[in-house]
Amino acid sequence: MHTQWIQQLTALWHSTIPIAAQMGIRATDFDGDTLTTEADFAANQNLHGTMFAGSIYSHATLTGWGRVWLALQAQGLAGDIVLAEGQIHYRKPVTEAPQCRCTAQAVDLSALREGRNARVSLTVTLGQAARFEGRFVVLPVVPSEP
Amino acid sequence: MHTQWIQQLTALWHSTIPIAAQMGIRATDFDGDTLTTEADFAANQNLHGTMFAGSIYSHATLTGWGRVWLALQAQGLAGDIVLAEGQIHYRKPVTEAPQCRCTAQAVDLSALREGRNARVSLTVTLGQAARFEGRFVVLPVVPSEP
Repeated sequence: MHTQWIQQLTALWHSTIPIAAQMGIRATDFDGDTLTTEADFAANQNLHGTMFAGSIYSHATLTGWGRVWLALQAQGLAGDIVLAEGQIHYRKPVTEAPQCRCTAQAVDLSALREGRNARVSLTVTLGQAARFEGRFVVLPVVPSEP
Repeated sequence: MHTQWIQQLTALWHSTIPIAAQMGIRATDFDGDTLTTEADFAANQNLHGTMFAGSIYSHATLTGWGRVWLALQAQGLAGDIVLAEGQIHYRKPVTEAPQCRCTAQAVDLSALREGRNARVSLTVTLGQAARFEGRFVVLPVVPSEP
């Protein structure tokens, strides 16, 4: 199931977010708690030959977004995931193909079950190089008119 | 002079940051205090058909980076500009071609003149939709060995 989900997640990113496809972002592993993602290095360089700060942020935020999406799948729920706020600290330059990790042992989506917005705060790390904290909101999907 | 600088800034982004070229980010105006930049909308969409949160952040951070670069040009200095920390609040979805603005009436680069790192905090807005605060560091350029 996890393997199928990470394939679906990668396909979803590539088909709906052109910049994510350009960055080569892909989900590579999910063990039930931790989502691991990768991106291309060459596509995401800056003028110093290291990873562009904007790409590091995008990689991290999609990893957090993906962890929430996996929680929706695991709990059999539907919702629109949006980012409300992001903060990132850059500790050292990224000089090789980046890998991000986001661990969450439990994602509380009980508000969503009751038709309300669920708020999820997550931390994503890119090795020792960067640490991202994001506040995501999951909105109930409003049924379309028939 | 300002017109030449914004052309150089756009060319610098496109030639050294592949993702910035993909995003269609360009400097469009500088009046001595305020740098205005634009990006393509279609290239930066997400699965909701609005602007990808990562692209909003990348657009904002390059605008702040550009304002520091313009301060270097105006003060006749050289330095490597890196982002140490970024924070962004998303207030509403971006549904049309985005425009970012960064205003700084004075950028204190006195530390750089003395061979030390200069620290510059800047705010960038994307209309009413997003507000970014970045802490940049400008490092003295170390001369290459002959």
